[in-house]
Amino acid sequence: METKSEIIDTIRPPVSGAQAPPMTQCETTHGALSKNLEAAPSAIIYCEGNFAQIDGKTANGLVRHSQAYRILSVIDSTYSGQDSGLVLDNEVNNIPIFAHLKVAVAREAKLPDTLIYGMAPSTGRLSPADRSVVLDAIGLGMNIVSGLHEYLSDDPEISKAASERTVTIRDIRKPKLSKDMRLFDGSVANVHALRIAVLGTDCAIGKRTTATVLARALNAKGIKTVLVGTGQTGLMQGAKYGVAMDAVPPQFCCGELEGAIVAASKTEKPDVILIEGQGALSHPAFCTSAFILRGSQPDAVILQHAPKRAHRCDFPNMPMPTPSSEIALIEAFADTKVIGVTLNHEGMSEAEITSTISAQSQKLELPVTDALSRPAAHLLAMVIAAYPSLKEGDTMAAI
Amino acid sequence: METKSEIIDTIRPPVSGAQAPPMTQCETTHGALSKNLEAAPSAIIYCEGNFAQIDGKTANGLVRHSQAYRILSVIDSTYSGQDSGLVLDNEVNNIPIFAHLKVAVAREAKLPDTLIYGMAPSTGRLSPADRSVVLDAIGLGMNIVSGLHEYLSDDPEISKAASERTVTIRDIRKPKLSKDMRLFDGSVANVHALRIAVLGTDCAIGKRTTATVLARALNAKGIKTVLVGTGQTGLMQGAKYGVAMDAVPPQFCCGELEGAIVAASKTEKPDVILIEGQGALSHPAFCTSAFILRGSQPDAVILQHAPKRAHRCDFPNMPMPTPSSEIALIEAFADTKVIGVTLNHEGMSEAEITSTISAQSQKLELPVTDALSRPAAHLLAMVIAAYPSLKEGDTMAAI
Repeated sequence: METKSEIIDTIRPPVSGAQAPPMTQCETTHGALSKNLEAAPSAIIYCEGNFAQIDGKTANGLVRHSQAYRILSVIDSTYSGQDSGLVLDNEVNNIPIFAHLKVAVAREAKLPDTLIYGMAPSTGRLSPADRSVVLDAIGLGMNIVSGLHEYLSDDPEISKAASERTVTIRDIRKPKLSKDMRLFDGSVANVHALRIAVLGTDCAIGKRTTATVLARALNAKGIKTVLVGTGQTGLMQGAKYGVAMDAVPPQFCCGELEGAIVAASKTEKPDVILIEGQGALSHPAFCTSAFILRGSQPDAVILQHAPKRAHRCDFPNMPMPTPSSEIALIEAFADTKVIGVTLNHEGMSEAEITSTISAQSQKLELPVTDALSRPAAHLLAMVIAAYPSLKEGDTMAAI
Repeated sequence: METKSEIIDTIRPPVSGAQAPPMTQCETTHGALSKNLEAAPSAIIYCEGNFAQIDGKTANGLVRHSQAYRILSVIDSTYSGQDSGLVLDNEVNNIPIFAHLKVAVAREAKLPDTLIYGMAPSTGRLSPADRSVVLDAIGLGMNIVSGLHEYLSDDPEISKAASERTVTIRDIRKPKLSKDMRLFDGSVANVHALRIAVLGTDCAIGKRTTATVLARALNAKGIKTVLVGTGQTGLMQGAKYGVAMDAVPPQFCCGELEGAIVAASKTEKPDVILIEGQGALSHPAFCTSAFILRGSQPDAVILQHAPKRAHRCDFPNMPMPTPSSEIALIEAFADTKVIGVTLNHEGMSEAEITSTISAQSQKLELPVTDALSRPAAHLLAMVIAAYPSLKEGDTMAAI
């Protein structure tokens, strides 16, 4: 019954225990996964009570895009029987939602390889109620992937169960040993590629999604682009380069990110490197973007904003910043410029999206678009407007 | 031969292993140490080749001020036979420097309790050459204290030796388990005390020293002041409240610092809370001060600067910022104001200190002083000028 086909785990040295950030360096086997997703390990995403919600952002990201795992289904009893794509984006993706692990497993001919814990609560901790599901999956012989701050491989009960069942636990956020981490040394300044950071005015606001859409659009135009992930969702999705910043000691944050960018530059020789932001530079609780700006020294920044969000996600007492205040803060903090604003349209009607795009672009004197509800060409145009010479890549590809 | 009188270790639950930040919460036993230093564990500081240098800042700080350990001697063969106070500050402190551990131990009637690894290299790692000294100390039966990023308690050889000899290893930088860490929740806004952060234009520039001098001066004036430490040296010195920020995952940095400030406020009910800064907000590699500004939400900032420093410490390719650019950055990043600048007089003559104080105060239109070479009253006046109502504490105490 046990399936040991976890490609990810077999190409990485230590499997249970010290694990993350697993995709920092050049793992060339990885790039192949998107072309050969059938060979990727299959996975069920556990997201009880949180799918399509903010704290379910890991699950939401994985059903939209996954290079490292073949996503079979989602567990969330709230939406039992529905299609996850329909629930999330009003578009069928054939990834069904089930109420329980047992049902999700029973529907597969072969035991799925992996259970992915698909929630990212701000506490970063496993709830007691979810523990039994993880133990059940281990009992069935499934490997576990988790982006929680609480390392499941350090949990005595869970690690004992995993060891008895000889399944693996992959803690995405578990940092490398400090002796294996690097300090910032300024070498990012020698990276040839244009570096654009996608920052935001809050956590869980769509920075990674916008960066993913933009990377695809640029690559489709023949402008070679690499996305450097900085959060656990991006790494689970199979980002080839990146580091789970929130799990790295501050001493090494700038250096580890710089290392991922330099590695991407050397191996891929891209025209553009996109860097996923974290939290918000103005966020009282989560300002990891300070390290992202220092470590990546971006030429430009795209700012993701949700006009209808009433307060910072999970913090009802913390008001949202305006795009203009965040832009001023970013440009004061780092030697860079914001070249455009992208919207998260949560709570907005089609008409509101249109009028907000128009009003904000006038107010900010910057291009404004929505990566999901508007054509990717608009997002592409934002970058080309700031860096017209990038178009040459397009011309080259077209010849 | 073994001495088990490590007060610090006996009042803290886990001794070998998960250890830091040990002084975050209310450890009332601790406050008593300064009054009863004889009861504090005795310690030899190991600082080979680095005493009185920048990377020896842990040793330098401890010979100047230590509430948690009774410092017996320093090991650095460069200054063998000299008085550490004379070497460091041109003032005898009766803490001798020896060339070897053996000599330093032989001179004591009783085996010293502790070896403190007193260097803070920017790599945060134990050099192979220093390893044998740590093992020798363990072999003698001494406990080990380390502020390295590489946890000595996780090192198989060192932890095996410590376990065989039943001595303790205290890794100051080892973070708590994530389930025991807290997120920022804004409660720092309800802290009654005036909060002043002492930031700087570089690492290892004297922020902690200036904050220590200021705390003493305010307390001497009857203005009750608590210093919240944010680095490993402050915690080793016996800071009652604080967190080794560089070892906390970014997710919890603001929250853990906020927790230390709220705890200090509740227990001590001080008039003033001083917060030690880390690195520099403008530093490309070490900008933990971003978290310090967000987590402490200071009313005011004092900026420490070394006019003669040619480049960032340990980074010859990174120029120093000017005080005015750093002030502009701090005030743009956080809703606070810089109320004065303090100098680190490295490489400066008496005349240069005087002329720089005068020139900079004119240029910046702010009070400027030097916490070490000028009377503490000047530093006190800087704070009183910004907050005249604080003087009431003085009047109250005088009545």
